Amino acid sequence: MKTYIAPVPLDKAYRLLNHGPTVLVSARFGGTDNVMAAAWACALDYAPPKLTVVLDKIAKTRELVEGSGRFVVQVPTVAQLKLTYQVGHRSLSRDPGKLDHSGVELFDIDGHDLPFVSGCSAWLACRVLHEPHNEKTYDLFIAEIEAAWSDTRVFMDGHWNFETADPAMRSLHYIAGGRFYAIGEAMDVDQGMPD
Amino acid sequence: MKTYIAPVPLDKAYRLLNHGPTVLVSARFGGTDNVMAAAWACALDYAPPKLTVVLDKIAKTRELVEGSGRFVVQVPTVAQLKLTYQVGHRSLSRDPGKLDHSGVELFDIDGHDLPFVSGCSAWLACRVLHEPHNEKTYDLFIAEIEAAWSDTRVFMDGHWNFETADPAMRSLHYIAGGRFYAIGEAMDVDQGMPD
Repeated sequence: MKTYIAPVPLDKAYRLLNHGPTVLVSARFGGTDNVMAAAWACALDYAPPKLTVVLDKIAKTRELVEGSGRFVVQVPTVAQLKLTYQVGHRSLSRDPGKLDHSGVELFDIDGHDLPFVSGCSAWLACRVLHEPHNEKTYDLFIAEIEAAWSDTRVFMDGHWNFETADPAMRSLHYIAGGRFYAIGEAMDVDQGMPD
Repeated sequence: MKTYIAPVPLDKAYRLLNHGPTVLVSARFGGTDNVMAAAWACALDYAPPKLTVVLDKIAKTRELVEGSGRFVVQVPTVAQLKLTYQVGHRSLSRDPGKLDHSGVELFDIDGHDLPFVSGCSAWLACRVLHEPHNEKTYDLFIAEIEAAWSDTRVFMDGHWNFETADPAMRSLHYIAGGRFYAIGEAMDVDQGMPD
């Protein structure tokens, strides 16, 4: 495991997704690894932490998720802008060298037989809670987050530190047509205000 | 309808949510209107456009949604930071004046018997696609987006213009504990790159 990567307590895992970043979904099955981009991923519950993610029927990554019942959701950074776009638009079926061509480097985390993408700011190891109707009708997958990690340079002690971290570590928020927005300025509400 | 509000074509409606903003969910039933904040809302499909939203069983707004089968998802702005936090933390059950006390002003759109929150940047009128198992087990609601509108000062011709609009119109992205981030800088990927 890399130097700056540390576990995130499961009760704080939802915070890794709460601000709605575009994510990378990676999976491994039958000797094949793949990575795709997904703007449609969302926290679903706190404890045990769960999330939803939409995986199109044409996505090779979906086949791998269906085979293994597991996947990783990771939060890419501004430094990974092109990588994020490329894994979202290249197809492993058409381009067997997709990961290399997209600049993806994978790493391992002990105890998890899953492909983790290097250079992200957070990683969530997920186990599918099989819901055939949702998967078939809506391409909607529900999963429990079994473990989570962050790059402590940008998420530590349960908090994102985008405002002080290297701007290249900000999260990406995809719209369409190659247009992303990076996450911006921090804004705090005074919690002491009358309720 | 207010001057700057214009319809968004349904095939572009997903773009209003694609960058993962925290939203306000409003609903009307039996003479009661309510508004809550939700960080867990997500696009689900393009055509017809659909979305998911998590509505806790204790939320009064959920009761109204279950009664009417309809709700509005709207995208609040930086100018509505306190309002967004307050509607997320006040309860209509405990505070019947919640909307007034939170600074919420509602308006109507012809043809839709729904409470729309003034001052937001986008509005999506939704009809529940009733999925009892998801609602009961996961508090997860699936809905079809039947109509959408934007404030043309920040979303026009299918595109957000956060980078040129008044910064007070940026979207909010909630983490926890009163901490939000505003959406930030635009970043474009060259779509001409080799695929």
